[in-house]
Amino acid sequence: MGKALELARRGLFSTRPNPRVGCVVVKNDKVIAEGWHQKAGDHHAEVYALMHAGADASDATLYVTLEPCSHYGKTPPCARSVAKAGLKRVVIAMRDPNPLVAGQGIAYLQAQGIEVIVGVLEREARELNVGYISRMERGRPWVRCKLAMSLDGRTALSSGESKWITGESARGDVQRLRARSCAIVTGVGTIEHDNPSMNVRHDQMAVDFNHYAYPIPPLRVILDSRLRALPQMKLLTHPGEVLIATTAADHSVSKWRDVPSVTVVQTRSSAAGVDPDAVIAMLSSRAINEVLIEAGACLCASFLKAGLIDELWVYVAPKLIGNSSRNLFDLAEVDSLQNAHQLALHEVCSMGDDVRLVYKTG
Amino acid sequence: MGKALELARRGLFSTRPNPRVGCVVVKNDKVIAEGWHQKAGDHHAEVYALMHAGADASDATLYVTLEPCSHYGKTPPCARSVAKAGLKRVVIAMRDPNPLVAGQGIAYLQAQGIEVIVGVLEREARELNVGYISRMERGRPWVRCKLAMSLDGRTALSSGESKWITGESARGDVQRLRARSCAIVTGVGTIEHDNPSMNVRHDQMAVDFNHYAYPIPPLRVILDSRLRALPQMKLLTHPGEVLIATTAADHSVSKWRDVPSVTVVQTRSSAAGVDPDAVIAMLSSRAINEVLIEAGACLCASFLKAGLIDELWVYVAPKLIGNSSRNLFDLAEVDSLQNAHQLALHEVCSMGDDVRLVYKTG
Repeated sequence: MGKALELARRGLFSTRPNPRVGCVVVKNDKVIAEGWHQKAGDHHAEVYALMHAGADASDATLYVTLEPCSHYGKTPPCARSVAKAGLKRVVIAMRDPNPLVAGQGIAYLQAQGIEVIVGVLEREARELNVGYISRMERGRPWVRCKLAMSLDGRTALSSGESKWITGESARGDVQRLRARSCAIVTGVGTIEHDNPSMNVRHDQMAVDFNHYAYPIPPLRVILDSRLRALPQMKLLTHPGEVLIATTAADHSVSKWRDVPSVTVVQTRSSAAGVDPDAVIAMLSSRAINEVLIEAGACLCASFLKAGLIDELWVYVAPKLIGNSSRNLFDLAEVDSLQNAHQLALHEVCSMGDDVRLVYKTG
Repeated sequence: MGKALELARRGLFSTRPNPRVGCVVVKNDKVIAEGWHQKAGDHHAEVYALMHAGADASDATLYVTLEPCSHYGKTPPCARSVAKAGLKRVVIAMRDPNPLVAGQGIAYLQAQGIEVIVGVLEREARELNVGYISRMERGRPWVRCKLAMSLDGRTALSSGESKWITGESARGDVQRLRARSCAIVTGVGTIEHDNPSMNVRHDQMAVDFNHYAYPIPPLRVILDSRLRALPQMKLLTHPGEVLIATTAADHSVSKWRDVPSVTVVQTRSSAAGVDPDAVIAMLSSRAINEVLIEAGACLCASFLKAGLIDELWVYVAPKLIGNSSRNLFDLAEVDSLQNAHQLALHEVCSMGDDVRLVYKTG
């Protein structure tokens, strides 16, 4: 199953909106075939593995990181192909939370007399598809918020200067984080100030593309309540789809009418501008698994306060920049430490000269 | 040598002002005797090991984490005892930087026809006695500054509430850090506000005292330019020596005249009050190896700006407490990221729910 997970990871940047899935066929203690899912519409992992195994699949054991599907989607149901191949046993890391599957794949296999084992390396399998699972189980994407700060908790000088707080290794990691996300959310303020591309730069990912499929560019989402973004801004000239979430009235969207890559969506407003809940609901309806928020202190705080951030990725640079610099979040001081916004440490590692801290909320 | 270092660590909290030293005697690939230095005035590590080895030391190899001394101090020179014991070979992790030794121990052994190897696990040996080495090589102690902060870089609410930002595990680590320090430096403001004991609480150290000698209470140093500290404050009622560094005139020290554990020392003043350089110079003259600064943003910043901090120990709690809370350092904003106070990441680890980051400066 470790091998199957490794194969599944090859699709980390490319399977969306599908889950990443890997599969191996083992016979007489030897791996005789491998497969992984590369992109939506393409064969599922099991199909590739069975194609490679051919007649040898008979009486073999198949290891797969997600329950084989039982429904006709873009491809026929895998459970049926698995059963047809004459396998003796199927080992599954986790049940598919997709209501169209949800145990029916397992039931089908069992009904065909195949021994089925479920729950091997389940934690790792869930981690790999945290966004897909979130969308299936909670009806909303898994939302990460990424911040880069100095050791004294500042994201930029008061002038806005923030290039670069962190080093190359951390910035490469952010590229990988973008590449695995289905959508990147930012605010028009960040665009006006920094004019970022927020695209995925393959050459900065520090990834061996012999072991990963090339990324599919994530959807970029701009929260722009009063439609201040302009077509010549970098983010809007780079290839890839852009979605502008606004609270402005319809008629003001004329500047975007002839830009095919840009869609303007009217969303509910809240005190801070575009309502964060409405944005996440909209992304859920677009089959977005993993969302990355890369924005300023105000927008990040509005998502945090709305309880919409699942993970906080904080890169800490070995620098002190002083006290009038920009804060991490636009948060009012809590009245007591008991009432602090509590996070749960998930992961710590060094990344070049920087440190990456990953927290879960709630 | 690994074993010898392990033995040396037993004296982590007790050898000051001496270095921590461990020693093993090996014969026919077997450890036949061990020794470690426990406290000043007591036998050195080599002497203990040789006492245990007795006549078996003849033709054996001795591993010791620091060059055997060549001078008469509180005890006779170890190099002579080592030579007398009839050892064939002596393996030394590092030369003793003490100018009274500085290679003379090695030269003496070699002159007696003993094979001497120097530099085995030297990095680890240096790390263990970083303060002693600093005092010998640079003429000043190794200075650590410890801070506990929320993820958004705040050490306390604006009300001063800071109990507790970090959890039990991090607080236990601070106890160990205190226990290994020769002196703890704080400011009168911290004492007035928090009324801390700044003593070492053995029961909170989470240390097995079967493997460590009990701590000798560190000297506590209060920077108190105008002599505002009062005898009833906790720090002053707990056992152990206290040194008050002041810039006030002599006659105002009457309140301390009858408190035997308290010494008042007049030091140079600087913009911030007591001059940090003068404090460190004073501690150097008192054979202080490792200093721990536990103080507010202002005092910490004054030592930082004076270039006197060697290591920054920052405990990061999984909390956000908001933006009007207290800053890590009283530092003006830098004018450009190029001019940020640059640190070098030395160590990262999680500690319960908190993270410990250790940086070196300069």
